[in-house]
Amino acid sequence: MSVFTEYDLMRELHKDGDKIILLVLDGLGGLPMEADGETELEAANTPNLDRLAAEGTTGLSIPIREGIEPGSGPAHLSLFGYDPVHYEIGRGVLEALGIGFDLGPNDLAARGNFASADANGVITDRRAGRIPTEECIRLTAKLQEATGDILPGYEVFVKPVKEHRFVLVIRGEGLGGQLTETDPLQTGKKPLPVQDESGTPEGAHTAALVNKWVEAARAVLVNEPRANSLNLRGLAKDPGLPQFPDIYGLKAAAIAVYPMYKGVAQLVGMDVIHFEGDRPPHEIDALERIWDDYDFFFVHIKKTDSYGEDGNFDAKVHEIEVVDELIPRILALGPGALIVTGDHSTPAKLRKHSWHPVPALLWSPRAMPDQVQLFGERVCASGHMGVFHATHLMPQAMAHAGRLKRFGA
Amino acid sequence: MSVFTEYDLMRELHKDGDKIILLVLDGLGGLPMEADGETELEAANTPNLDRLAAEGTTGLSIPIREGIEPGSGPAHLSLFGYDPVHYEIGRGVLEALGIGFDLGPNDLAARGNFASADANGVITDRRAGRIPTEECIRLTAKLQEATGDILPGYEVFVKPVKEHRFVLVIRGEGLGGQLTETDPLQTGKKPLPVQDESGTPEGAHTAALVNKWVEAARAVLVNEPRANSLNLRGLAKDPGLPQFPDIYGLKAAAIAVYPMYKGVAQLVGMDVIHFEGDRPPHEIDALERIWDDYDFFFVHIKKTDSYGEDGNFDAKVHEIEVVDELIPRILALGPGALIVTGDHSTPAKLRKHSWHPVPALLWSPRAMPDQVQLFGERVCASGHMGVFHATHLMPQAMAHAGRLKRFGA
Repeated sequence: MSVFTEYDLMRELHKDGDKIILLVLDGLGGLPMEADGETELEAANTPNLDRLAAEGTTGLSIPIREGIEPGSGPAHLSLFGYDPVHYEIGRGVLEALGIGFDLGPNDLAARGNFASADANGVITDRRAGRIPTEECIRLTAKLQEATGDILPGYEVFVKPVKEHRFVLVIRGEGLGGQLTETDPLQTGKKPLPVQDESGTPEGAHTAALVNKWVEAARAVLVNEPRANSLNLRGLAKDPGLPQFPDIYGLKAAAIAVYPMYKGVAQLVGMDVIHFEGDRPPHEIDALERIWDDYDFFFVHIKKTDSYGEDGNFDAKVHEIEVVDELIPRILALGPGALIVTGDHSTPAKLRKHSWHPVPALLWSPRAMPDQVQLFGERVCASGHMGVFHATHLMPQAMAHAGRLKRFGA
Repeated sequence: MSVFTEYDLMRELHKDGDKIILLVLDGLGGLPMEADGETELEAANTPNLDRLAAEGTTGLSIPIREGIEPGSGPAHLSLFGYDPVHYEIGRGVLEALGIGFDLGPNDLAARGNFASADANGVITDRRAGRIPTEECIRLTAKLQEATGDILPGYEVFVKPVKEHRFVLVIRGEGLGGQLTETDPLQTGKKPLPVQDESGTPEGAHTAALVNKWVEAARAVLVNEPRANSLNLRGLAKDPGLPQFPDIYGLKAAAIAVYPMYKGVAQLVGMDVIHFEGDRPPHEIDALERIWDDYDFFFVHIKKTDSYGEDGNFDAKVHEIEVVDELIPRILALGPGALIVTGDHSTPAKLRKHSWHPVPALLWSPRAMPDQVQLFGERVCASGHMGVFHATHLMPQAMAHAGRLKRFGA
């Protein structure tokens, strides 16, 4: 089924109804550390999530496609109902969103890497010896100062990220195309010029602009001891995604601590909510505060993923239990549909994102209580949503919240 | 979901990793002979396969589409990750592969049927009274002799199959088109000329060549008592499938006894391994011998299907047990991912291929051990792969073998 068909169905059928909460525990899915052990979620003491699973409908969610290890950006697009294979977000855009840059429709963003080069410009270290972040801050300020206004009619922003990484944003009319990267991807080679593969006048114009900036920027760096060159990767604009509020007829709010997740929510047209604090209870404070103002609430819990990447099984278990304790406060608000799932798995055993399907539950007064009585990887395989693609969650939530009209007579 | 997108994902994301084994027990899936009985696989004593199921991830595989009874060619394409609805292999090609003909890119293959006709050429028996195979061998030799060089610039091969069936291959430059069949599909009608439906010059040229050969061949047969006419069906070339090693970045070997399976493997670019013997242990001997030389190993066990088609429940059970005993030898090689499944079901109860989903297991050190503890049709429905399309197995195997990069940032 084409993704456009699903959008069209939502656009065509949506109506007013109850409120929807999408509670995402980042990297929720896990693996047993030993063959006969439990996963993080199975090991956690989660009486409230278990109650939701028992009263609701469960399943296992495939973030992107079977076997595909998801990046965070595409995994969240899936949860919002967008097929991320059709709507790719460029790395430059994600990097800009990741540092909280307020990316506009006329902005071209690139991920930058400081690099070391020899006298002929041949790259000798693609990461400039992983210079410290303070050095990155100094260098980006220097570039901002020297190259901020060298492209007539365009604004240039050079922002530090971490170590050798920075973000370049060029703002102005008529940017676009399909742009190649400068990074030769190995040492011993010269950087490549940016080229346009779209064949459009806009693309050729943009490639020329970027190459002009790169040349000027390298000249600024020429006497730096280590970071005397740079490369650009993932040059891209906001992909202009169909807007979430239009597709679903939902006024949508995003409650998240990390810029990257706020950024993806912003790209699809959600309002990013500002609040004090950075722990799950602070996020639920914010949820309670804005409850009357929105129809849809995306609440993002980050640390489950971070602890998974650290290989810290116990800390991930504990963070799941912290969230579990907040469930009664969430239920007390009276949602028509509450989804609890992850954007992908981050098993502490693997210390990274993985392709394993993610346990998912949908609680609603209108849900079919399937035979699953607990919230966990193994049991959710028997749930009424089956093993399904994550893009199906939003239509399910819409239905359970009474927000979809009948299809056909 | 477009099949092309999945190919592109594999092409884009593959990297080096561990070795993958695809062990196919042809026609593995079965049915209970009585309502409360067990299937062949459930009845078999399979401690090793049960262990793999307990430690690995399981599911039920749909070979083509829900409810579709698979032919062997398309069913194997699915296992290799090709949607067989998009990549049809012509019947002539399958028939040529089935007799072990070494089909090249310039070859047009057709399935031939000897037929009986009256004095006016009207077909009176579409199978020439099912002449014995020895008769078929005599007739094809006669045709080879008389028509082998009647098409200037082209080689003609006429090969016997079985009873009234033979294979015609025309070899040379510029063959193609979309060619109709000569068989009127009922007695009392004259054969049809071959026509091209592609509208290409190549198609018109090829149709004319084939019609010239058919006319000459019928003239050769005119005084035969029964097989005095013939028809051609499924005229096709090697469809030029995307090559498995390119899609997955895998150097791939096929270990199979029957020509048809070697042929399909060859069409997708696998190396067909020659070995002595024709029983499963001989195939594992070959697997051990070539282990260091390849990344991917397709091992095909035929007799499970043959016994199913014979309606021989017990012999099918026994053949499954023969394979089970070989599992420790396979595991000892240290694969990163081992798939065990069938290309389709061949229940002894039905004595033919069937559409029923096929139990599948994926064993890997990186697998989620789902709640399924045995290998069998009923229990696999609760596995973490769910009820899935067979084309998903290859991406799953790639992921579990550590052979896929992350999708998106």
